[in-house]
Amino acid sequence: MNIPTIDLPRIVVIGAGFAGLQVAKKIDTNQYQLVLIDKNNYHTFQPLLYQVSSAGLEPDSIAYPIRKILHKKKNTFYRLTNVEHIDTEKSIIKTAIGDIFYDQLVIATGATNNFFGNDNIALHSLPMKSLTDALNLRSKILGNFEKALNTTDLERREELMNFVIVGAGPTGVELAGALAELKNKILPNDFPDLDLRVMKIHVIEAAPRVLAPMHENSSEKAFAALRKLGVHIWTETFVTDYKDNIVTTNGDQSFRTDTLIWAAGVKGDFPEGLNAAEIGRGHRIITDDFCKAKGVDNVYILGDAGLIQSERYPQGLPMLASVAMQQGVYLAKALNRLARNKKAVPFIYNDKGSMATIGRNKAVVELKKFRFQGFFAWLVWMFVHLMLLVGFRNRVVVFVNWMWNYFRYNNGLRLIVRPYKRPTKA
Amino acid sequence: MNIPTIDLPRIVVIGAGFAGLQVAKKIDTNQYQLVLIDKNNYHTFQPLLYQVSSAGLEPDSIAYPIRKILHKKKNTFYRLTNVEHIDTEKSIIKTAIGDIFYDQLVIATGATNNFFGNDNIALHSLPMKSLTDALNLRSKILGNFEKALNTTDLERREELMNFVIVGAGPTGVELAGALAELKNKILPNDFPDLDLRVMKIHVIEAAPRVLAPMHENSSEKAFAALRKLGVHIWTETFVTDYKDNIVTTNGDQSFRTDTLIWAAGVKGDFPEGLNAAEIGRGHRIITDDFCKAKGVDNVYILGDAGLIQSERYPQGLPMLASVAMQQGVYLAKALNRLARNKKAVPFIYNDKGSMATIGRNKAVVELKKFRFQGFFAWLVWMFVHLMLLVGFRNRVVVFVNWMWNYFRYNNGLRLIVRPYKRPTKA
Repeated sequence: MNIPTIDLPRIVVIGAGFAGLQVAKKIDTNQYQLVLIDKNNYHTFQPLLYQVSSAGLEPDSIAYPIRKILHKKKNTFYRLTNVEHIDTEKSIIKTAIGDIFYDQLVIATGATNNFFGNDNIALHSLPMKSLTDALNLRSKILGNFEKALNTTDLERREELMNFVIVGAGPTGVELAGALAELKNKILPNDFPDLDLRVMKIHVIEAAPRVLAPMHENSSEKAFAALRKLGVHIWTETFVTDYKDNIVTTNGDQSFRTDTLIWAAGVKGDFPEGLNAAEIGRGHRIITDDFCKAKGVDNVYILGDAGLIQSERYPQGLPMLASVAMQQGVYLAKALNRLARNKKAVPFIYNDKGSMATIGRNKAVVELKKFRFQGFFAWLVWMFVHLMLLVGFRNRVVVFVNWMWNYFRYNNGLRLIVRPYKRPTKA
Repeated sequence: MNIPTIDLPRIVVIGAGFAGLQVAKKIDTNQYQLVLIDKNNYHTFQPLLYQVSSAGLEPDSIAYPIRKILHKKKNTFYRLTNVEHIDTEKSIIKTAIGDIFYDQLVIATGATNNFFGNDNIALHSLPMKSLTDALNLRSKILGNFEKALNTTDLERREELMNFVIVGAGPTGVELAGALAELKNKILPNDFPDLDLRVMKIHVIEAAPRVLAPMHENSSEKAFAALRKLGVHIWTETFVTDYKDNIVTTNGDQSFRTDTLIWAAGVKGDFPEGLNAAEIGRGHRIITDDFCKAKGVDNVYILGDAGLIQSERYPQGLPMLASVAMQQGVYLAKALNRLARNKKAVPFIYNDKGSMATIGRNKAVVELKKFRFQGFFAWLVWMFVHLMLLVGFRNRVVVFVNWMWNYFRYNNGLRLIVRPYKRPTKA
């Protein structure tokens, strides 16, 4: 790889998500040369992907180019490529654009979809992990209504207008809320000659309740809010197959749908070659309290790809943006300390709480000491998400979009640009 | 096609460009049922496509959904589909979603690229006719700089950083100006470790001067402005082939480039089946002074797809947005008159002039009675384009983007979303 060699140790960071970006921003480049690698030239703000899917926000409002973020950092290099292999013996990573040597390697590659080995689901469901996924889902949803107008076959119309979301975590719940608002407030204007009562939104969740990691009270409020919006929720249910547009489950229910949205299982995603590393639950690389991979030298794993296993965190930490960001900041500081020969301190997670929104005016927020719901929670949810967005421009664009939507009930343009085509088996 | 049959004559309009949209907006739906068909669910403001290509504007700021435009029109139906065939004997059009009968047919399908039979150019050049084209070109341009960083082969770097534009009409000239601004003002911040002097922008034009249809004086000003921005212009030159990343011409010049941009020949684009119609210059359907196709009943051709041949316009009219818009308004009124049994009047084109911009602060404008250039022309260019955009939202978005760009020299985010892949021969 075409990176100048200078007289400083080189840190290579793979992945410009919440964790990797913090390392790149906070590392002391008087002490290190930093190389950041990502397969996209932008950072994606994943928590708002669902609003891109539901055509509420445009891609450019939740993505921010890595080069712009790193404009002013010296000794910092970004490269757009895919990492193919890590050679921990030689401290080299192999990429499509050549090899590169590292002194310290930071793997912050996040998570990918876990379809639990079901090829039909893997091929035909629509995931929600990337901007491309979100745009595909958007054009699928909008395209389905155009198609529904043109069929007189009622069964076909139903499968086009039924949406089945698997997983009732924040992504599933928030997307269900956004689809319900499309159905109730927005699509009736776009499709006056389509009977939108045919449109059904189903959420399937294996756990006994929605937003399972949150407090029971929050789950109940979210459940009630979704029900009120007309969303059908099937808990303690899991999908067994998806064939010929029929979703089958472990229970009696089956669902006819052209659109199965996968917001359920994820697993750690990282390049091959870490043979000496231990892999734990959720296909995540086990690390110690210092985010260092066990059994491998000079390799740190941050965010969803890693799983701390220590006395302090015997169960590890959840796969959340806040864990990833805090680990990124922690590791940058730890490496800066290391360069000054200061003693290492372990990572301690500061759990600030969690939240989810269920359509207009409604959210559930859980902070350390108390929890609340409703309109004020929704304001908090919006404020926190705006502040976490990268770039002043994007904050303004998202804020203006939200305000416009709030007062005009007409969010975004709903363009079908570069339509999604369902893959066929090769 | 699933359209209700009512007791009014049905007008079917194919194409929601400048012409088709005006017909749909202005037709009297107390007198007619209107069906509008387009293969995209949005109207594209083609004059600003080049700014999407150069990452100055996002797609959603120059496209507007057809359903939103027609929200309040009664007896008006839009369908997203491709027209496969026209049967003028039976007055039926065949589409992917079924057949539909028309009483009056309006063909406003515009133009497509004319590669003059060269398969290599057709396959490997990048056109600029649609939003998809513009996004492909954008990701190609940005991706090439990422690749250029990673090669030590100087010849390869040159071909990645050379851009050859064929055609010095408004599109070619405006894109060349925008690329020059990327080179001079924007990319140096994004790519501090890339020597941007390597980047070359060539414009190849068969005519003896740029902006050939405009006055000589405007051509000279545009030429001088492009030269000042560092653009290389080759007039009286035409491209003969594009193979192995080499553009060959009729002259001595050949150009090594990974990116050949086709802003040259276009030809009328319309569905098959108009066998009785006469086809004229530029593969356009010949019409009379009333925009009615010669030799066919009840079929009107508007905009780029049609070519008026009459005493008044023996040479026809140019392929311009203003012609298309005026024809759309004219035909709607003519059909409204027809419904009231009023006498038909011929179409008369009101030539308001033409204009082009060449980067920041510079444009050439030609009005009926006088012409001017420079900063004031640039303001006029911006004002006219803003006013022609569909939708208040898009006017605001484009205006804010332009102002931001003007004062901050940092237009847009330059995201590579869904990268372009060069096609290979099947």
